[in-house]
Amino acid sequence: MNSVHVPVIEKILGANDQIAELNRKWLDGAKTFGINIMASPGAGKTSVILQTIKALAPRLRIGVVEGDTAPVTIDADKVIAAGMPAVQINTGGDCHLDAVMLRKGMEELASEKMDLMIVENVGNLICPAAFNLGTHINVLIASIPEGDDKPYKYPAIYRGLNVLIINKIDLMPYVKFDMAYFRQGVEMLNPGLITFPVSCTTSEGIAEWAAWLEKQVVQIKKN
Amino acid sequence: MNSVHVPVIEKILGANDQIAELNRKWLDGAKTFGINIMASPGAGKTSVILQTIKALAPRLRIGVVEGDTAPVTIDADKVIAAGMPAVQINTGGDCHLDAVMLRKGMEELASEKMDLMIVENVGNLICPAAFNLGTHINVLIASIPEGDDKPYKYPAIYRGLNVLIINKIDLMPYVKFDMAYFRQGVEMLNPGLITFPVSCTTSEGIAEWAAWLEKQVVQIKKN
Repeated sequence: MNSVHVPVIEKILGANDQIAELNRKWLDGAKTFGINIMASPGAGKTSVILQTIKALAPRLRIGVVEGDTAPVTIDADKVIAAGMPAVQINTGGDCHLDAVMLRKGMEELASEKMDLMIVENVGNLICPAAFNLGTHINVLIASIPEGDDKPYKYPAIYRGLNVLIINKIDLMPYVKFDMAYFRQGVEMLNPGLITFPVSCTTSEGIAEWAAWLEKQVVQIKKN
Repeated sequence: MNSVHVPVIEKILGANDQIAELNRKWLDGAKTFGINIMASPGAGKTSVILQTIKALAPRLRIGVVEGDTAPVTIDADKVIAAGMPAVQINTGGDCHLDAVMLRKGMEELASEKMDLMIVENVGNLICPAAFNLGTHINVLIASIPEGDDKPYKYPAIYRGLNVLIINKIDLMPYVKFDMAYFRQGVEMLNPGLITFPVSCTTSEGIAEWAAWLEKQVVQIKKN
């Protein structure tokens, strides 16, 4: 039998994934650990970011890329007030950030020599799940008053996570939230997912999350 | 001067708006009042719907169309357990309902002779704002633990509202929420918007909302 040489292209990345790969290379080259924080509107993305800055600012330089659907700079202003550089990306109504948008934000922050870059995605549990940004990890912030059924209703976003933060645990006494039922849903979608229950009001759990995050930053410096 | 007759097409509706118009005609013909409820994940759409059913069930036949991004029927099951017909539309990952999807749901419920049809949109503050469904009113449920800055961050959805429900007011003592700042943002985007502060836990404010809604249902029967 004659063998015919057929060129096999093993994996063709879509445009977004190609740019995401470039973003990852940029981060690796700069020895900057990149995290993408996703959540519903009002789950506490900005509050967790501000608490993380407070915990790590003495030792790390942290830059923040703020994704918003409107031109208001409420969140970016808070980060800058906390002493760290921030750039805002207005998606113009789009429901998520994509790798190209993040690239523009990273270019703005390029001179900052960041140890850690935090991306605050648009508040949404659906669209951001479909767009790889090229960060090292994807983090979801769930919050207690949102209810315990969210993993069952928004499975796609839970499947793609590296870390889950459960925020507003100080509100547990005042709302119905079955932690076992919630965790069972998460476990089904993403077995063994690293999880940090926290409260940005009482600061409970923030030290554990910050310590874990700092370890990842130190690790990337060694590579 | 000779006048040339140029045909002027005054308003061409996009496909979604054309179907939305048909939906509205169907509702008017059936004398069914239709409402579209939008909110972030976990703001309490289903809880408000269940409280509304409880308040109005003795006098009104209520059908519910549940929009979900996943095939779980958690919300539809609760409505059926409350004694009213429900149909679930799984958007297959899409972040909103559109007029065509609602049409399919309405066809399923057509035999129910509803006085009131409640649409529970997908949990999202961005995408649903862009799709007219043809219902008589658009309702947003904001919730206290989400924070007071949401009108500033998600202006598009606030602009298109007929009614705003502020849910979880029982949590006011436990979170930071500046009601004056929140209402100022709403007023800027949608002056004079009809607003009902409620709690599905204590039932505070539900009677006022239900009474207002029942008036609209009675009104459409008279037309």
